[in-house]
Amino acid sequence: MKLIRFGAEGAEKPGVITASGKKVDVSAFGQDYNEEFFGGDGIERLAAWLKDNEASCPEISDDVRLGAPLKRPSKIVCVGLNYAKHAAETGAAVPTEPVLFFKSTSALIGPNDDVVIPRNSEKTDWEVELAIVIGKKASYVELEDAEDHIAGYVLHNDISERAFQLERGTQWCKGKGNDTFAPIGPFIATKDEIKDPNNLELWLELNGKRIQHSNTNDFIFNVQEVVSYISQFMTLLPGDVISTGTPAGVGLGFNPPVYLKPGDVMELGIEGLGTSRQVAKAYTKA
Amino acid sequence: MKLIRFGAEGAEKPGVITASGKKVDVSAFGQDYNEEFFGGDGIERLAAWLKDNEASCPEISDDVRLGAPLKRPSKIVCVGLNYAKHAAETGAAVPTEPVLFFKSTSALIGPNDDVVIPRNSEKTDWEVELAIVIGKKASYVELEDAEDHIAGYVLHNDISERAFQLERGTQWCKGKGNDTFAPIGPFIATKDEIKDPNNLELWLELNGKRIQHSNTNDFIFNVQEVVSYISQFMTLLPGDVISTGTPAGVGLGFNPPVYLKPGDVMELGIEGLGTSRQVAKAYTKA
Repeated sequence: MKLIRFGAEGAEKPGVITASGKKVDVSAFGQDYNEEFFGGDGIERLAAWLKDNEASCPEISDDVRLGAPLKRPSKIVCVGLNYAKHAAETGAAVPTEPVLFFKSTSALIGPNDDVVIPRNSEKTDWEVELAIVIGKKASYVELEDAEDHIAGYVLHNDISERAFQLERGTQWCKGKGNDTFAPIGPFIATKDEIKDPNNLELWLELNGKRIQHSNTNDFIFNVQEVVSYISQFMTLLPGDVISTGTPAGVGLGFNPPVYLKPGDVMELGIEGLGTSRQVAKAYTKA
Repeated sequence: MKLIRFGAEGAEKPGVITASGKKVDVSAFGQDYNEEFFGGDGIERLAAWLKDNEASCPEISDDVRLGAPLKRPSKIVCVGLNYAKHAAETGAAVPTEPVLFFKSTSALIGPNDDVVIPRNSEKTDWEVELAIVIGKKASYVELEDAEDHIAGYVLHNDISERAFQLERGTQWCKGKGNDTFAPIGPFIATKDEIKDPNNLELWLELNGKRIQHSNTNDFIFNVQEVVSYISQFMTLLPGDVISTGTPAGVGLGFNPPVYLKPGDVMELGIEGLGTSRQVAKAYTKA
């Protein structure tokens, strides 16, 4: 199943992309894609409900905005430097265990919303990433049980301000949690749709030029390892998002570095998880 | 006004400590202490409602558990090394701008709940802190406007696992977001109750011995500066929690360091914000 949310920012409703590729409104199911949904067998219940109700679900027209395909989670945990080649381009040593950091959930936006370059930013950068959506509470999960705790997968652009992240103290959060820095979607593919999350092509194009292109088979720590590892440090709740790191080709890695300017267009995708497109725009006082 | 939440974990109800010191159930007001409450003039509306309804609010008996006095916020942003003496004891240079990090919201517990020492932890530590609760959306807030965005203040013990925080990579989140690592409360004092948040005594006792004792007048960056500063990097939402850092006297600062053992008792307090008490216990598989 492919889960979407649609409508105006802050007033999104749940929807589904059907097997035939049609987008339909499933508000009548009565539950948004939140912790209760993922933790309460929502995917199974929605699939059963759709068998009887799909025909009567209103179709969503293509000009309707897509939102983030899940309601605000308790946390977004990110893995840094999880592709061998990206670790090399940033000049960092290949980590012996996952590097973790948090992204604030107030950064979440829809897959095709504008990315705002923060005030005083000169180093706003892109990072195409495979993100995991947690389906079942995960605390001290063994590697062989990790897959049981996953609901599905989603495309994420882990936007980062490199000066704020790396030049304003040792902790990265000043350049990771900024507003609009987490475009996510278009849809969550439930895990039955993804044969092997550790073997997916992913790419990002800046103004039509492909500058990130890799495969998750280049992961230093794969999806199951990452879920099990994080769960040793904190409980992952249903609906929580884990972003698994980005491959080579970020702006910071160019010589000289290349960063976003207003009007720049990012188009990104992952095999089986669709594509998204964000235009960078300058901050203007609301 | 003093806001509390009470009842079993996960099923807390809102309450108030009245001017006469009585704890009363305000469930009948119809709103929990969440983003909508703080962002929608909830404090003013609740105060007005209480004028007519306080007499009919059920009293809460003293043996009822207190929960965290606000519902899960979008984020907990913490300031590191914000007291000159604590910066010195950790061996860190005095920062020229605030050091920021996130604590996961799944770490929140009630003020007198047990703190669980994580599996494989040998360096679990305490940090008494003044925390700010945001009352109004804050983005690029000027210093002189910062106070307008504050709803109130609350006592927080920023529990930290030093090996996970400092010895497992550069990012602190492995030792900051662990379950039970954010005991908060007993109550949120609305800002009208606190004459000057930058001049409050605070202390922590380990097994009856006072080992942290300072005053927020030793802040490197005061409450208004911290709110304004963080809002340059991300939007603070109503109900978000900012923890302002801890003074000298943490376990890491002793020579040799002293860390929590099962059975250890932490009692802490801030002038005007009450006291809390947590017992450390060993992790056991649920």
